[in-house]
Amino acid sequence: MSGNNQKNVLVTGAAGFIGTHVVRELQKTQDEYNIVALDDLSGGFIENIPQGVTFIQGSVSDANLITELFTKYKFEYVYHLGAYAAEGLSHFIRRFNYTNNLIGSINLINEAVKVGTKCFVFTSSIAVYGAIEPPMTEEKTPHPEDPYGISKLAVELDLMAAHSMFGLNYVIFRPHNVYGEYQNLSDPYRNVIGIFMKQIFEGQPMTIFGDGEQQRAFSYVGDIIPLIVQSPTIPGALNNVFNVGADKPYTVNELASKVAIALGKPDHPTVHLPPRNEVGIAYSDHSKAKSVFGDSPHTSLDDGLEKMAAWAKTTTIRPLKPFTAIEVGKNMPPSWIKYLDNQ
Amino acid sequence: MSGNNQKNVLVTGAAGFIGTHVVRELQKTQDEYNIVALDDLSGGFIENIPQGVTFIQGSVSDANLITELFTKYKFEYVYHLGAYAAEGLSHFIRRFNYTNNLIGSINLINEAVKVGTKCFVFTSSIAVYGAIEPPMTEEKTPHPEDPYGISKLAVELDLMAAHSMFGLNYVIFRPHNVYGEYQNLSDPYRNVIGIFMKQIFEGQPMTIFGDGEQQRAFSYVGDIIPLIVQSPTIPGALNNVFNVGADKPYTVNELASKVAIALGKPDHPTVHLPPRNEVGIAYSDHSKAKSVFGDSPHTSLDDGLEKMAAWAKTTTIRPLKPFTAIEVGKNMPPSWIKYLDNQ
Ligand SMILES: NC(=O)c1ccc[n+]([C@@H]2O[C@H](COP(=O)([O-])OP(=O)(O)OC[C@H]3O[C@@H](n4cnc5c(N)ncnc54)[C@H](O)[C@@H]3O)[C@@H](O)[C@H]2O)c1
Ligand SMILES: NC(=O)c1ccc[n+]([C@@H]2O[C@H](COP(=O)([O-])OP(=O)(O)OC[C@H]3O[C@@H](n4cnc5c(N)ncnc54)[C@H](O)[C@@H]3O)[C@@H](O)[C@H]2O)c1
Repeated sequence: MSGNNQKNVLVTGAAGFIGTHVVRELQKTQDEYNIVALDDLSGGFIENIPQGVTFIQGSVSDANLITELFTKYKFEYVYHLGAYAAEGLSHFIRRFNYTNNLIGSINLINEAVKVGTKCFVFTSSIAVYGAIEPPMTEEKTPHPEDPYGISKLAVELDLMAAHSMFGLNYVIFRPHNVYGEYQNLSDPYRNVIGIFMKQIFEGQPMTIFGDGEQQRAFSYVGDIIPLIVQSPTIPGALNNVFNVGADKPYTVNELASKVAIALGKPDHPTVHLPPRNEVGIAYSDHSKAKSVFGDSPHTSLDDGLEKMAAWAKTTTIRPLKPFTAIEVGKNMPPSWIKYLDNQ
Repeated sequence: MSGNNQKNVLVTGAAGFIGTHVVRELQKTQDEYNIVALDDLSGGFIENIPQGVTFIQGSVSDANLITELFTKYKFEYVYHLGAYAAEGLSHFIRRFNYTNNLIGSINLINEAVKVGTKCFVFTSSIAVYGAIEPPMTEEKTPHPEDPYGISKLAVELDLMAAHSMFGLNYVIFRPHNVYGEYQNLSDPYRNVIGIFMKQIFEGQPMTIFGDGEQQRAFSYVGDIIPLIVQSPTIPGALNNVFNVGADKPYTVNELASKVAIALGKPDHPTVHLPPRNEVGIAYSDHSKAKSVFGDSPHTSLDDGLEKMAAWAKTTTIRPLKPFTAIEVGKNMPPSWIKYLDNQ
């Protein structure tokens, strides 16, 4: 199942946005890797899986499948990106969130311990910080305020516990609002840039929650991928947590106008929706990542949006795949309830 | 299903040690409560369920059952004690731990939000603190170091998130090494006092992990029960976290000698096992609980052990019910592997 010198490597969530970039970068830079790509296609697309990898359609929450895969491939490295990442929606799908994002991760951690995986790379999120005073630094106390962020923090802590009990090495990344090519443009619950682009394509006004003065440091995917991919082979990275992404925050209003410009529709209108329960200003400090990984590219928001727009114009927007198994309907933003009714 | 003025109240883990005390205290002090006692009897005993409550055998991780119960009883208060609480073992049963202790709690939180439960009381644990400098205060940053403590912290954070999103009130208790009447004397993985008592009854030496100089503030169950039971009706308690238990720490060596004295066998021998991965010194500060609940009884370790010993002498020690579904066997203390082999 792999050449003599090949290392078996697992990428979960490989059919998703960040996952497909990780797989492509691994293919480009790591000849000696035999890549197994796992995805349940709940949020990702088979078209995102490039030639030359072993694709397995299945869920990380299927414990038997995970055991089978680890028994067969004894993965040297695991890049665990598979998750349902709709942060705001996680309040309404608590059980699903923890089952998919936490129990799924635990299945992988158990098996990684058993086969002696050398490094477990995990994409956590800035959601672990909650509403703290920015800039967020890795030393600050995490206090996640939604089930998505809580599940990410629990996996982080579990990896640390598995490291001290079993010696399993990990690298944890906390990316910040990532955007770029291959992003899902039809997810109504997240990825504000994708949402804006789709709205522009469809001639709808761009929808902004609240006054649009909330700030985020939108991060171009190409800037963070090399760090994620190389991390298992960089000794200083092992058993550390890193913020990754752009330094400079922009308001959602500024973002809307930049997206409109990138798509060549500078006057495209916006509409404001009632505010939702979300953090006001969020941006991270990246000096820790810089000190370990060195200087990495810093694509400006304008340049990144231009690249993404060029890709978006040539891609087919797939039909809406909204989440249907809502557990608690109370206090949902009306703009989301709409999608439920669409079912 | 309840008299006109009766409030329906759910106690999970009611057949367990702390649960049976909670149910009895509710019966003693709260005439107007109709008590539904839920327990899957995985760790508790049907004999611990007193007359006069509605007992339901089932698991909090059975989402359908939980929905049925909340739909039928629309619980005013929930006392959620049901958990598999073997902290040290949780490294080896990660998936089971999170499924039982976290997903189970999430099922209850979802339904409590839906029916408008007035207060959700949750027994967390000092395990959420991890190895921090004692005394542990509620303001200190939690950093749990085992899956059990991580699942407790995740439930705490999830309750806070549910409070801010849905207005669900909670009270969180972090009890510290509780002991007393009705404690399970045949659990080999936890409750050092119960383990010592059983060993004395069976003429075996008391087994101590490491040098026995690790310190804990062993807390008499009768001192914490009134706080837990009253908390939903004390406005100052709502949406707060409280350490509860004894102030004064003792070494495990001191404890062994006191247990031997309490059972009238002052010269009973001890034997030291290899140390396990555990926190050195742990004791909590209880000024926050005092400021809200007022002064509560403080039973000394000698007095508490005397009461427990009097009870233990008259109780039947039930056969060992060790945990069999170990997920990862690596690095388990040899004294525990023994129980697996016994199967
Ligand atoms: N995009 C961001 O801004 C951002 C920020 C912080 C963290 N992250 C994290 O990065 C990772 C990748 O996110 P993304 O933006 O590429 O999202 P994405 O939705 O595009 O990709 C996630 C992929 O995981 C798959 N997946 C979901 N549940 C699965 C399961 N149970 N088993 C197997 N596969 C499953 C989906 O089908 C999808 O292909 C996630 O863990 C996410 O939480 C993303
Ligand atoms: N005893 C302590 O020192 C201590 C300290 C801190 C926290 N706690 C917490 O207090 C609570 C009660 O602990 P205890 O010492 O009485 O333990 P226990 O084992 O005596 O009681 C727990 C009860 O929960 C039941 N249970 C377990 N899983 C269940 C499930 N999925 N569904 C329904 N019932 C389930 C068991 O059968 C048992 O009766 C637990 O949440 C525990 O984590 C205990």
